[in-house]
Amino acid sequence: VSPFKGIVPYLITPIDCDGRVMAGVVKELCDRLVDAGVHGLAPLGSTGEYAYLSDGQRVAMVETTLAAAAGRVPVFAGVASMTISGARDQARTYCRLGVDGIVVSLDAYFPLGELEVESYFVAIAESVELPIAIYTNPNFQCSDLSIDVIGRLSTHPNICAIKDASTNTGRLLSILNRCDGRLDILAASSHIPACVMMIGGKGWFSGPACIIAPQSVALYDLCVAGQWERALRLQRSLWAVSEMFARFNLAGCIKAALEMQGLPAGSPIPPQRELTEDERLQVAAVLAQVREATSVN
Amino acid sequence: VSPFKGIVPYLITPIDCDGRVMAGVVKELCDRLVDAGVHGLAPLGSTGEYAYLSDGQRVAMVETTLAAAAGRVPVFAGVASMTISGARDQARTYCRLGVDGIVVSLDAYFPLGELEVESYFVAIAESVELPIAIYTNPNFQCSDLSIDVIGRLSTHPNICAIKDASTNTGRLLSILNRCDGRLDILAASSHIPACVMMIGGKGWFSGPACIIAPQSVALYDLCVAGQWERALRLQRSLWAVSEMFARFNLAGCIKAALEMQGLPAGSPIPPQRELTEDERLQVAAVLAQVREATSVN
Amino acid sequence: VSPFKGIVPYLITPIDCDGRVMAGVVKELCDRLVDAGVHGLAPLGSTGEYAYLSDGQRVAMVETTLAAAAGRVPVFAGVASMTISGARDQARTYCRLGVDGIVVSLDAYFPLGELEVESYFVAIAESVELPIAIYTNPNFQCSDLSIDVIGRLSTHPNICAIKDASTNTGRLLSILNRCDGRLDILAASSHIPACVMMIGGKGWFSGPACIIAPQSVALYDLCVAGQWERALRLQRSLWAVSEMFARFNLAGCIKAALEMQGLPAGSPIPPQRELTEDERLQVAAVLAQVREATSVN
Amino acid sequence: VSPFKGIVPYLITPIDCDGRVMAGVVKELCDRLVDAGVHGLAPLGSTGEYAYLSDGQRVAMVETTLAAAAGRVPVFAGVASMTISGARDQARTYCRLGVDGIVVSLDAYFPLGELEVESYFVAIAESVELPIAIYTNPNFQCSDLSIDVIGRLSTHPNICAIKDASTNTGRLLSILNRCDGRLDILAASSHIPACVMMIGGKGWFSGPACIIAPQSVALYDLCVAGQWERALRLQRSLWAVSEMFARFNLAGCIKAALEMQGLPAGSPIPPQRELTEDERLQVAAVLAQVREATSVN
Repeated sequence: VSPFKGIVPYLITPIDCDGRVMAGVVKELCDRLVDAGVHGLAPLGSTGEYAYLSDGQRVAMVETTLAAAAGRVPVFAGVASMTISGARDQARTYCRLGVDGIVVSLDAYFPLGELEVESYFVAIAESVELPIAIYTNPNFQCSDLSIDVIGRLSTHPNICAIKDASTNTGRLLSILNRCDGRLDILAASSHIPACVMMIGGKGWFSGPACIIAPQSVALYDLCVAGQWERALRLQRSLWAVSEMFARFNLAGCIKAALEMQGLPAGSPIPPQRELTEDERLQVAAVLAQVREATSVN
Repeated sequence: VSPFKGIVPYLITPIDCDGRVMAGVVKELCDRLVDAGVHGLAPLGSTGEYAYLSDGQRVAMVETTLAAAAGRVPVFAGVASMTISGARDQARTYCRLGVDGIVVSLDAYFPLGELEVESYFVAIAESVELPIAIYTNPNFQCSDLSIDVIGRLSTHPNICAIKDASTNTGRLLSILNRCDGRLDILAASSHIPACVMMIGGKGWFSGPACIIAPQSVALYDLCVAGQWERALRLQRSLWAVSEMFARFNLAGCIKAALEMQGLPAGSPIPPQRELTEDERLQVAAVLAQVREATSVN
Repeated sequence: VSPFKGIVPYLITPIDCDGRVMAGVVKELCDRLVDAGVHGLAPLGSTGEYAYLSDGQRVAMVETTLAAAAGRVPVFAGVASMTISGARDQARTYCRLGVDGIVVSLDAYFPLGELEVESYFVAIAESVELPIAIYTNPNFQCSDLSIDVIGRLSTHPNICAIKDASTNTGRLLSILNRCDGRLDILAASSHIPACVMMIGGKGWFSGPACIIAPQSVALYDLCVAGQWERALRLQRSLWAVSEMFARFNLAGCIKAALEMQGLPAGSPIPPQRELTEDERLQVAAVLAQVREATSVN
Repeated sequence: VSPFKGIVPYLITPIDCDGRVMAGVVKELCDRLVDAGVHGLAPLGSTGEYAYLSDGQRVAMVETTLAAAAGRVPVFAGVASMTISGARDQARTYCRLGVDGIVVSLDAYFPLGELEVESYFVAIAESVELPIAIYTNPNFQCSDLSIDVIGRLSTHPNICAIKDASTNTGRLLSILNRCDGRLDILAASSHIPACVMMIGGKGWFSGPACIIAPQSVALYDLCVAGQWERALRLQRSLWAVSEMFARFNLAGCIKAALEMQGLPAGSPIPPQRELTEDERLQVAAVLAQVREATSVN
């Protein structure tokens, strides 16, 4: 059975001015999230600025997360590279460190054909004995997977879920109809999680869950219980967080919000800039509005 | 109250070899659809090849639809132009002919600023006393409406609904949160209608409804009754029709399917080509699969 | 031999508040341009807002231009439609009115395959005995022609030139290498005309030539004489006009500049807006700079 | 004075099955190119698959090129990163190794604002005392530089040239007019080098020059001598190489061509695939055609 399910926040990567992962911040964030009831933790996603980290920073972030989780919830590390050899090295390293699964995406510089895309994911799946979720983010990555490729990949025993970060919810239903029973569907930040749950999704893997963890868990529970009207009411209250996340730099947005919640997570990695004062006011307003609407502090 | 709700098929425009609207086909199609329980009829949408019709063909299509509907269900005509004066002429003409509402979109050649886009819709809304649904289709039209413009347009008394034909379901929730109580949301062909209904949508305005009208009405009824599990089961069976619609030329796809259902609707307007034999076989397979799954003939 | 060569300004279409073509303005503009030595006149291009004109306005504009030209230079009318039948009607009408050639482009709503694109141009070429220039503008039109399609079209006896309004000058060289001797290459506004002339182009068909006609003719003469250093010096002085043209709404820009040159050409057709006061100051500055640099008043 | 001028081939990076740079191949390639008269050598560009190399492979490639050049021609190393700190580390390392200049580009995952883009290039320029060429490749990189940013960067004493790998030759003229005397313009593979030379460019930095070095040098010499007609005749013969380069995977194309020229350069880094047999036949045909047309073996 796939371990990929429930509310799984994509962790930010807090980096100090010497380029080191701030272990204390990661520990505190993980504790908060586990206390709030999340079902897993995911370092090295888009929100975690994986593309901006050196190999050493990536390893440090995975180690720190595993130590912070301390076995309470599974840890799913992001694997992403332009090359098969690079991705394979990452997968093996994280496997050795003890992660419970990997979330694999493909970076690309030159355009790739379907067979080249497929060969990348198959090579990673062959390289480790770990559950694998495919991750595709056409908004930021220069490659994508066709439904045909996804269909073929779903037959690999190690590949058990997909997180599609397009905004196209219908595409998720197409994947589900094609791969039913072989591949679980996960909502990303750009989807309405309640809708994805309704069509058969298994959870929400997203950056925003870092800052609204209790509400996200409550939403998940309502969906699992089939309480769709209540789920939708909560969903509508939470949607402003997803809108904010799409409007600003992902890492900048979540790092600023965490600081407002008492966890100084630092700045996005340059040349990415911090949010402006005006943008921070918008974030604060959204957080206040969500807090009020959901009466969860 | 807005008249835009329920299942409203976008009618194909059957044209004979002399360029005339085939009134008999329109009549037969409308009868079938009304008999199946649809809640309205919409000539001159994307599926209706509005962009390919002369002014005279457009008027003929609206007249023919009104005659066929014979007051049994409301008729909503599409209004679209590059210019304010062109759209205003269309709106006034269709109003005089007796339509129950208009669905207004903006064609563009050069890029337009927000104020220019807004001025177009306001000018049309001022020109007739008719309920108006805004229609935006970023897949095919070279203009789009920002949430800010939609928010301002929603305050106009004549503008009461929006059909957003992007694939981005989250955008519909953003519109709903922004314009609640002033603007109804309608699902387009590119959305999962059951998901749009669940977040608060009022209906499904779409080309595919031409060929699966009874099932579409059944789906709508389940959604309105809050029977979400049953609705979703039906939705999953119907989704292949939406996939097919996205894969082929819209008009070619629906015209071919109608012919298979015993209604010879002709070819798409050249230089658009007819479906190939292989594509027709795919359409036939989807129709057979849906018929079997839903046991509605 | 192809009549498409030299400096051929794309005429703006001046429309009064009743929607009528302002014949006096067209006459005055054509007189100025012919006096400046241009080699032809082209109504109904992008600069002429062809996409915003009714059928009646289009015919009026062609008739007015023909009357104004009075046989002094050839007149090339733009033909553009979504449908083969629409384009054929235009071509036949303009042929009957007496134009010396047509410049044909394809509007599209739904995507078209190569064979559909080709069938459109062939059908127009079969419908009239007139020299034809193909016109493709991927910046504004939703269709484009592949080099393969252009290669096949170049074998049609009526098709003798191509105006490619991409910014990709290398594409022109590819077309030239493929179709040499069968298809002449024309520079559009988005290319550096001196570069296009250098690789073998036959002229410059463009909106900006309306407002810098004497300098454009001088540039053409230098190129034809092989005086490349002097041509390039003049070209660099004129380039600011092309930059300005790309930055603003085409019709708004040229209409404002003509008004500054004493020819009140009206506003772009709504919802397109007029230039702002600040934008008009930028246009005035560019005109002054070009006038000074070229010492042609 | 800027060292960036003349014909400067972007070197492929030959990698053996253990992931090591094949020094013998690099040496042989550099010898051939220097013998053919090229004016510099550029490791770590797009053609060199920089995006696919580990930090160690990048350093090895620069060291190998420097050893192979042995001071006969300058070596310009590519610097590219998502982060300021990563790019700074590269720049300092290559400077210490002894390169004569760096060609700096910006990788991006999330969109960046103008000031963030500018801050990246300024930070690199501040970090080393080396001549810098800016490199922007909007076809493959997810960031671009506006003319305003380029204008401001041109005032930095270390920034002396720009290689713009768009296909928009007019943009080069805009840069030249804006930054004249401060920033030299270089043609990339996607431009017609003779056109760029004619408007004032200083050279051609490109992957194709690896396989047509003698002809490229001859072209450059004709341009410098102002022999434009002869330059253009040669340019037209060579253009098929640029077309081929744009049609196939860059590294795959050049590596295959070098193998045909007797230099087994290996395969592109997986998951990029090798050219198919049919594609190799096309490459061979182009090489034969160019050889024949230019009578240079």
